[in-house]
Amino acid sequence: MGSYHFLLDMALILFSTKLFGIVTKRFALPQVVGALLAGLLLGPACLGVLVETDFMDQVSEIGVIVLMFTAGLETDVQELRKSGRSALIIALCGVAVPLAGGFLLGTAFGVGSPLESAFLGVILTATSVSITVETLREMGKLSTRSGSAVLSAALIDDILGIVALTLVTSMADPTVRLSLVLLRIGGFFAAALVLGVLLHKGVKWLTQAEDRGRRRYAVFSFGLCFLFAYGAETFFGVADITGAYLAGVIIANTSQAAHIASRCETLSFLFFSPVFFAGIGVKLVLPEMSGALLLFALVLTLVAMSTKLLGCGLGARLCGYSGRESLQVGVGMVCRGEVALIVATKGLALGLMQEALTGPVILCVMACAICTPVFLKLSYGGEKTYSDLVQSDLVDQYEAIHSLDIAAQLMLEDHQRLLQEGREKQTGPNRAGRSRSSG
Amino acid sequence: MGSYHFLLDMALILFSTKLFGIVTKRFALPQVVGALLAGLLLGPACLGVLVETDFMDQVSEIGVIVLMFTAGLETDVQELRKSGRSALIIALCGVAVPLAGGFLLGTAFGVGSPLESAFLGVILTATSVSITVETLREMGKLSTRSGSAVLSAALIDDILGIVALTLVTSMADPTVRLSLVLLRIGGFFAAALVLGVLLHKGVKWLTQAEDRGRRRYAVFSFGLCFLFAYGAETFFGVADITGAYLAGVIIANTSQAAHIASRCETLSFLFFSPVFFAGIGVKLVLPEMSGALLLFALVLTLVAMSTKLLGCGLGARLCGYSGRESLQVGVGMVCRGEVALIVATKGLALGLMQEALTGPVILCVMACAICTPVFLKLSYGGEKTYSDLVQSDLVDQYEAIHSLDIAAQLMLEDHQRLLQEGREKQTGPNRAGRSRSSG
Repeated sequence: MGSYHFLLDMALILFSTKLFGIVTKRFALPQVVGALLAGLLLGPACLGVLVETDFMDQVSEIGVIVLMFTAGLETDVQELRKSGRSALIIALCGVAVPLAGGFLLGTAFGVGSPLESAFLGVILTATSVSITVETLREMGKLSTRSGSAVLSAALIDDILGIVALTLVTSMADPTVRLSLVLLRIGGFFAAALVLGVLLHKGVKWLTQAEDRGRRRYAVFSFGLCFLFAYGAETFFGVADITGAYLAGVIIANTSQAAHIASRCETLSFLFFSPVFFAGIGVKLVLPEMSGALLLFALVLTLVAMSTKLLGCGLGARLCGYSGRESLQVGVGMVCRGEVALIVATKGLALGLMQEALTGPVILCVMACAICTPVFLKLSYGGEKTYSDLVQSDLVDQYEAIHSLDIAAQLMLEDHQRLLQEGREKQTGPNRAGRSRSSG
Repeated sequence: MGSYHFLLDMALILFSTKLFGIVTKRFALPQVVGALLAGLLLGPACLGVLVETDFMDQVSEIGVIVLMFTAGLETDVQELRKSGRSALIIALCGVAVPLAGGFLLGTAFGVGSPLESAFLGVILTATSVSITVETLREMGKLSTRSGSAVLSAALIDDILGIVALTLVTSMADPTVRLSLVLLRIGGFFAAALVLGVLLHKGVKWLTQAEDRGRRRYAVFSFGLCFLFAYGAETFFGVADITGAYLAGVIIANTSQAAHIASRCETLSFLFFSPVFFAGIGVKLVLPEMSGALLLFALVLTLVAMSTKLLGCGLGARLCGYSGRESLQVGVGMVCRGEVALIVATKGLALGLMQEALTGPVILCVMACAICTPVFLKLSYGGEKTYSDLVQSDLVDQYEAIHSLDIAAQLMLEDHQRLLQEGREKQTGPNRAGRSRSSG
């Protein structure tokens, strides 16, 4: 009966990640932190009821691909084009400084080859602005000049992070020369573009042929995501998550993007993400967290925070933001999240990161998530609300989505109530007298 | 780079099942038939590009569990109670006759032990009315006495099928006595009920604690599904799919059932179902489909059709339906679908069905799906529309869901159009003059 054990694993993962997620959400922390804690608790580090299996590894791998595909789906190329020069400069500085900081840290602590040190820098590049957005909205500061700059810069930051990841992981094979690596990456992007356009037209034709093609559009898009992930690795030596992200970007600019994104998000939160995040926690074996590693985790966290703060703050200052605003932009970009963990997992698989560093990376992500809301409140503290609001499509969009969410929920509740009332009426005394109007 | 091959497998499965699904839908056949054909074509039977892997097996297993969980979620106990005596009699006869027919067929052809013959009967019990409902709605016959009887009887048919499956699979272990088997099944249902009520209260408490708990409700429910599936197998020797179905039934009677069902359905159609159905096709090796097996497939199909027709028709006649109406009820219940395939897969895993019988079962399901719409049109042919419409909550509900589907889609399209217009307006000339109303 041992073959059914993976069902228990799935049940444990779903229950524990969600329970811890609720607890962390109470403390205004992202649910990712809860999921990581759940994995730590259930894994060999504490209780030991959950161990790594091949199945969990493969589900995790699909989880990563789904997460990156969804990230790509949320990339609005139109918005990107409008985000402007200052967002680009903030993002560029905000990627370059952590990249350099990670490399220097890796070299100083001797984590391995120069490539492994560079990879540590790549882990530190990707910002996660979800906590910042949530905190700023609560504070009513999302429409400030600094809030709007964070949103725009974060868009570009994602793409720069992917470029850095693609470059470094493509060099993982030491027998391959840099020129060939660049050629491969170029070839991959060109092939992806051509294939994307062709498939896009094909799928469009299929969808137009029938009225209700929403479902098949989602299935085809998801298939495309797997195809790109596989093709990237197999034919171009580029990371599979780069392929998935690119597939997402291509589909993001179709009319069905919102629908597909919502479907993939369901797939992600209901199954793949919990397994992925708990899986990271499970990878951590506590005895390895010796004093030296704890020290490294502390330094890594400090480097992660200070380099992002410095890079983005400097970028903002260069673009004419005031000193206080620059500080706010820097603090807003400090937080790391899913992408840092995804990159780290990829590094483990490619041999670009030692397994022992998993713990420090997890601790660093957690620390950033815990500190960001506190830092943000401090940096905006005492400022008058609505002091210098700016007009930003991006901010409008975020707020529109937030209101739509609430509206949709109210409508659904209303609908359920109506159905319930209708049912009660049908079983009531005057049922026989009801006349049928439809055939 | 071999480890990335499963990504290609997933891409191939998603593309091919959906493409074939579109083709079969053109011919008014269920998409399941298309997915099976896709698996046959890609598998060792034809092209051989797809082979069975452990990963695919485990994803398929989860797919089966998700399908049965969703089936349970759609069980409305209130409707069941209202469906009445005649629906019960039709369903009982419609399960008993195919069960006996399958058993006799298995014995005549010598498929194995008496239990294996009985299992063949279990495969033939589960009706799939989706094709019937679709065809009758198109013909405007869903509100007839016979149409309404099919809908009600199909609800009970599902549950009787589960009971038969649970009984036969629980006896798979020859060392266990029947009395112990019955005790175990009773124990399982009792434990499931108690655990279900407790968990239900716990989840309710958690959900009330926060406003926006829809997501976590879905995750917890899905976790419950896995827990029941695991518990059924491990502690009670009851099939995991029985556990998943029961978890679905328990959750079906909560306020969040509709939401959870829609989420699980997404999970199913976007990933797990395609893998499961294609996986069945992949299992089929063509050289094994010798003349004897083809003959068996033909006889199996004839037995499947005639026993359902006879059983349900007889039941309807006993309840006072006219000869013609009884024929219509019988034809309406002929079709088999997902559940027959799920049961067959379970039988393979438990050693209750020989692998060679996979082909005949697939052919039988396909033949029933192809013939049902034709038979239905013949049996209703020449009859005046709206001749004897009846009042049925179930029919009303089906039609309400159909209209809601359309309404929801129209609303979404409208919403996308508005968003698009709003975006164009923002980038238009009078953008600067727009005033902000929200902070």
